[in-house]
Amino acid sequence: MRKVAIAAGLMASVALSLPAFAAEDLASILKDPKQQALQTLDYANTRYSKLKEITNENVKKLQVVWTFSTGVLRGHEGSPLVIGDVMYVHTPFPNNVYALDLNDNGKIIWRYEPKQDPSVIPVMCCDTVNRGLAYADGKIFLHQADTTIVALDAKTGEKKWSAVNGDPKKGETNTATVMPVKDKLIVGISGAEFGVRGHISAYNIADGKLVWRAYSTGPDEEMLVDPEKTTQLGKPIGKDSSLKSWEGDQWKIGGGSTWGWYSYDPKLNLIYYGTGNPSTWNPKQRPGDNKWSMTMFARDPDTGMAKWVYQMTPHDEWDYDGINEMILTDQKIDGKERQLLTHFDRNGFGYTMDRATGELLVAEKYDPVVNWATKIDMDKDSKTYGRPLVVAKYSTEQNGEDVNAKGICPAALGTKDQQPAAYSPETELFYVPTNHVCMDYEPFRVSYTAGQPYVGATLSMFPAPGGTGNMGNFIAWDNKKGKIVWSNKEQFSVWSGALATAGGVVFYGTLEGYLKAVDAKTGKELYKFKTPSGIIGNVMTYEHKGKQHIAVLSGVGGWAGIGLAAGLANPTDGLGAVGGYAALANYTALGGQLTVFALPNS
Amino acid sequence: MRKVAIAAGLMASVALSLPAFAAEDLASILKDPKQQALQTLDYANTRYSKLKEITNENVKKLQVVWTFSTGVLRGHEGSPLVIGDVMYVHTPFPNNVYALDLNDNGKIIWRYEPKQDPSVIPVMCCDTVNRGLAYADGKIFLHQADTTIVALDAKTGEKKWSAVNGDPKKGETNTATVMPVKDKLIVGISGAEFGVRGHISAYNIADGKLVWRAYSTGPDEEMLVDPEKTTQLGKPIGKDSSLKSWEGDQWKIGGGSTWGWYSYDPKLNLIYYGTGNPSTWNPKQRPGDNKWSMTMFARDPDTGMAKWVYQMTPHDEWDYDGINEMILTDQKIDGKERQLLTHFDRNGFGYTMDRATGELLVAEKYDPVVNWATKIDMDKDSKTYGRPLVVAKYSTEQNGEDVNAKGICPAALGTKDQQPAAYSPETELFYVPTNHVCMDYEPFRVSYTAGQPYVGATLSMFPAPGGTGNMGNFIAWDNKKGKIVWSNKEQFSVWSGALATAGGVVFYGTLEGYLKAVDAKTGKELYKFKTPSGIIGNVMTYEHKGKQHIAVLSGVGGWAGIGLAAGLANPTDGLGAVGGYAALANYTALGGQLTVFALPNS
Ligand SMILES: O=C(O)c1cc(C(=O)O)c2c(n1)C(=O)C(=O)c1cc(C(=O)O)[nH]c1-2
Ligand SMILES: O=C(O)c1cc(C(=O)O)c2c(n1)C(=O)C(=O)c1cc(C(=O)O)[nH]c1-2
Repeated sequence: MRKVAIAAGLMASVALSLPAFAAEDLASILKDPKQQALQTLDYANTRYSKLKEITNENVKKLQVVWTFSTGVLRGHEGSPLVIGDVMYVHTPFPNNVYALDLNDNGKIIWRYEPKQDPSVIPVMCCDTVNRGLAYADGKIFLHQADTTIVALDAKTGEKKWSAVNGDPKKGETNTATVMPVKDKLIVGISGAEFGVRGHISAYNIADGKLVWRAYSTGPDEEMLVDPEKTTQLGKPIGKDSSLKSWEGDQWKIGGGSTWGWYSYDPKLNLIYYGTGNPSTWNPKQRPGDNKWSMTMFARDPDTGMAKWVYQMTPHDEWDYDGINEMILTDQKIDGKERQLLTHFDRNGFGYTMDRATGELLVAEKYDPVVNWATKIDMDKDSKTYGRPLVVAKYSTEQNGEDVNAKGICPAALGTKDQQPAAYSPETELFYVPTNHVCMDYEPFRVSYTAGQPYVGATLSMFPAPGGTGNMGNFIAWDNKKGKIVWSNKEQFSVWSGALATAGGVVFYGTLEGYLKAVDAKTGKELYKFKTPSGIIGNVMTYEHKGKQHIAVLSGVGGWAGIGLAAGLANPTDGLGAVGGYAALANYTALGGQLTVFALPNS
Repeated sequence: MRKVAIAAGLMASVALSLPAFAAEDLASILKDPKQQALQTLDYANTRYSKLKEITNENVKKLQVVWTFSTGVLRGHEGSPLVIGDVMYVHTPFPNNVYALDLNDNGKIIWRYEPKQDPSVIPVMCCDTVNRGLAYADGKIFLHQADTTIVALDAKTGEKKWSAVNGDPKKGETNTATVMPVKDKLIVGISGAEFGVRGHISAYNIADGKLVWRAYSTGPDEEMLVDPEKTTQLGKPIGKDSSLKSWEGDQWKIGGGSTWGWYSYDPKLNLIYYGTGNPSTWNPKQRPGDNKWSMTMFARDPDTGMAKWVYQMTPHDEWDYDGINEMILTDQKIDGKERQLLTHFDRNGFGYTMDRATGELLVAEKYDPVVNWATKIDMDKDSKTYGRPLVVAKYSTEQNGEDVNAKGICPAALGTKDQQPAAYSPETELFYVPTNHVCMDYEPFRVSYTAGQPYVGATLSMFPAPGGTGNMGNFIAWDNKKGKIVWSNKEQFSVWSGALATAGGVVFYGTLEGYLKAVDAKTGKELYKFKTPSGIIGNVMTYEHKGKQHIAVLSGVGGWAGIGLAAGLANPTDGLGAVGGYAALANYTALGGQLTVFALPNS
């Protein structure tokens, strides 16, 4: 099964041992909308499928065709993959993997059940989630909670190699998926609530050897930045850009974890991702811009070298991690074809960038209630160009320690969190699952102990005031104008990833457990179905035996659902989320199920 | 809401405090096929519904309409109840209860989450199952694993009273449902693998006070038997019938638990149930008939007094608990209307009795592979009248201790276990979910310690030889002739309760997780759907907003699924079931979900 060949353009050091199959295999699957090899559907993270048997006309007839219980409760993020006739399903901790036979209603072909030390559970900030598997080179890649990366033979489940990316004893864990790029696997790390020093790493797909690692903070050479060539908003970042933005050694425990999504532009040969919050959540304790936390990065996947960076939230005061996905689209602006990157940041701004250069084109609020900053300064001549203009009242830094800054919008979990948006090239709209939640935030002094929470703030969350009490919206966004085109209220945050399809239908799930289908143009709700548990997974689609299927994992949890998932009752527990989402218990209970839909025959 | 009235015919001692509402309320709901107030559907345990929108013509169009995750894994036995617009769902340990709004896709109206000491788990022989709730008098009755009985206000979930029926420290636990009869709640107990002394008890529905208790073994007055008036096969049982059938004090730890189903005939004013195995499983250690283990009982529900008994398996050598349900039907035999009781015993014989007198009418094997006895002696003049004629080769008593008696059919879990059969008055057929499994059985000497396993035998189980390797059959049985009418092979034991309907369709679930619908006359498979996990729950039906619905709990477990449920791998673990059912892991994983079906609109 394993074709070995020499691929052109690969680093000499690995060329001989590398099955070129890797890239070719994956590339051809990525072109085939019947299958899904990456969590993000494509390298561009559009979450758009060309399948179109299910349309805005017939979606109301959707039926459940089979179901599967994963055998694990708590939050189920990510989605299954489909390669050929096999579906690959993952679970939260303990991160079991199932290969299911699509020809036999999901009969189990193999299962992989890693033995992980449960002591990793309390070191995971926001539920024991995992955002799913990736496929390349005949292998299924799993990045476990304990940061063990395993490559499994897709046919047999046999372990081909494993590698260890971090140390849970120091608060390093994993929840993210991995991205195979050519001969490498791009891998992130979690733990900015435990004072880790975030990094992104590339492992050899063939044998699991570490090829490069780029830290989010620290000396230039460890960050793989070039003081002269790496730019921010067109200007070189200069020497020691990170070191200068921290007090003393703080960058060593400075966070900037990389637990989000990764994109890749094969033409530009650049990968894109964002870094998380600086540690601690008490901004007074870490003067400076805290670079390069809260930053989008464009890097060369072969070398790891950063081409450009852009820090969305310098010196974060609200936990607005910058890790949300970077969606790569080619669109015309003023009649000119542009290579764009659109990013819905936790901080409530939707950014449109030139992804080749890192030029900032648009930055607008994608929820009108966002109040911590008036705007992003778009004046190229301004000293604060590209920076948010912070409102003093909502500045937890300016209010100071042990002061409860009230009514900040959005809450720490942002106008959007991990739940990925989708983009349809037909409508040129972005479909964004959002949070409509605000917070009170009281920072306090905290000291660092390896492996212990390093948070330093007490939060409480509540629905954005002045509305209907809804805690979420599902919106369509025009990234060129920076405008909401339509917006559907949801009772709770939409914590599920959207799927746009060529059938003119957009799918997403709700925390109560509904799978919903809406019209891509108008947002009109066309179908809904109550799945067993709250949905924080991402809707996916595939074709089997000539029929388009829709599949989604249910299993309430994630940060929003942490109260239910971890059985917490104190409103400020779960980093402040428990109180805000308490009403969720009236709708759903813990779960872990896959529901598969299709149109009826004939 | 609570009407208080004086009912006629009630015991004077409770008449004043008693809401007569109890019986009336329940009686009227039991007449209404739109609702389900008892696990058994009716007092006769027929599991037959008069609903008939879903027919053998249209059942193939069935669709899933909503689903609900219970938030608990492991074996889900029993079924939800439906009272008005509310569905009541229970879970295995910790025995949570949900009231779900049928008008809003199962929104949670209230939940009851008992705090039970998890030390009860290891004292449960055959998974942490619970066979469900019962409704009467505006209350939902739950009998928890730890033997706490609770009465919950059906509208609010508020606890009205609770009572304690046993002591888990002595191995007393509960898995059974309860049966409300007039002003009393009939309640059993588990623990014959721990040497408990089984009993059945009646509690006041109004306030939870114990009214009577009847032991399965011991002195006549504690068993509530009358040496002169209580009969077996027409003859008085005589004085000290139990005491004389045990060596010394063994009856005190003699088992005879009452963990099965209860039936009730209001006209005869008799309740029916069976007792479980004598303890230990090593027959050499307990000479005698071990009365009244393995016995069907007919008792007066008001006083507890036994009218008649019949011991199916005297001096059990195979763990053939006699607890399976007694199905009460009125049928013509030889032109004469008879009051019948049909019982599919673990020992592989299907018994038809006259339920008024306890007369034995028919006793035939309902699986031809049954080999431990040649037949039940039907010769009224024989000394062994009514007793099985045991085959020496398969007698674990005659083979003796530490000898592995091989190839005994059925296995300890019987030709049928807890999974209840259904009866359709239209076809006059019984639909029986069966096991097609045999065993090797090696008894060994064991000593009794309170709260510790008191088993004394090593078992291994395997598919009945000479067949296709199938471990189950779903059969239709003629109880008058004692003959199988049709039989459908199933890969695994059918551990799910059947439902017969007026639409000519019979439903059941499979351990792989399929809900199946078959034609009541022919057994032809008409529909199947793969639910999230293996089904050991009982299929139920109700009508809501003019539409018939079918609902079933998934969640693999029970004795057959104990390997998956408890994560056991050693083939002889789980009292011998793990090896036999190992292949189940290729089909399903743990779950706990409700799936609700209906026909499409229009
Ligand atoms: O800083 C970090 O390392 C880190 C990790 C994670 C994670 O790994 O899930 C989350 C967050 N932060 C976080 O800020 C956050 O809002 C969040 C939500 C979720 C989730 O899965 O619902 N994880 C995380
Ligand atoms: O003797 C007992 O007290 C006792 C209890 C139970 C139970 O409570 O579930 C079972 C059994 N025995 C038993 O013999 C048996 O086959 C069995 C199967 C199951 C099940 O739920 O799958 N329970 C029990």
